[in-house]
Amino acid sequence: MNEHLYELQPIGWVESPLVDRDSAPRQGEQGAPVAWLVFEEAMDEGLRDLEDGVEIIVLTWLDRAHRDVLRVHPGGDPANPETGVFSTRSPDRPNPIGLHRVRVLSRAGLRVRVNNLEALDGTPIVDVKPVIHLLER
Amino acid sequence: MNEHLYELQPIGWVESPLVDRDSAPRQGEQGAPVAWLVFEEAMDEGLRDLEDGVEIIVLTWLDRAHRDVLRVHPGGDPANPETGVFSTRSPDRPNPIGLHRVRVLSRAGLRVRVNNLEALDGTPIVDVKPVIHLLER
Repeated sequence: MNEHLYELQPIGWVESPLVDRDSAPRQGEQGAPVAWLVFEEAMDEGLRDLEDGVEIIVLTWLDRAHRDVLRVHPGGDPANPETGVFSTRSPDRPNPIGLHRVRVLSRAGLRVRVNNLEALDGTPIVDVKPVIHLLER
Repeated sequence: MNEHLYELQPIGWVESPLVDRDSAPRQGEQGAPVAWLVFEEAMDEGLRDLEDGVEIIVLTWLDRAHRDVLRVHPGGDPANPETGVFSTRSPDRPNPIGLHRVRVLSRAGLRVRVNNLEALDGTPIVDVKPVIHLLER
């Protein structure tokens, strides 16, 4: 591999009833819960146009993932044929960045309540973006 | 801020006719070019199910971005009111991860040709995911 490294610094943390990988849903649509995004105070200015009801992409660092994995059985099901990780949404991958499409339910300062977040409690948040440009075609 | 840091290691690099930010289109739909994703050899196993025609999300590290920016004029246009970066797709943001929705045109081993990639030549690639789960609702 190459010798380049870049440093990610969390801008906040997930607060969620999901506490371990075994209890996490395998697909967001199978009942991922309401959760809180709790941002660092230094991020305040960047958040201030985040309005109730808007759909966003939350980028997380899946800090409990295995980074040495290149092939997986999708959904963790051995019946599914082994697939290259870049064609799957496995959390185990060389740079375990999670992409979560969620809706802002409400915001109280640095605390943002969202629906449908498939991320474990304590997961670092590394970015938030509007979803819209990924959908326009 | 907190003291947590995570290390991203590029899995490959963009080869593109876009060589500086001034010549880059402001929106992907305004003519982002065909480009190559050139992966590290160590990633080979992870790539092998990436088929022609499939839509993917390419995650990049926008290594020429400014990380100390929390408010921007969207599109770089001073006529647009200043907006918190987390409600924009500005490359300038605390963790400058780029999300690019592109289509695989062809693949030759570690080299993957894609359309519509708004990323500068030499930009590090940090992950690739299927687009599909972000679209299903």
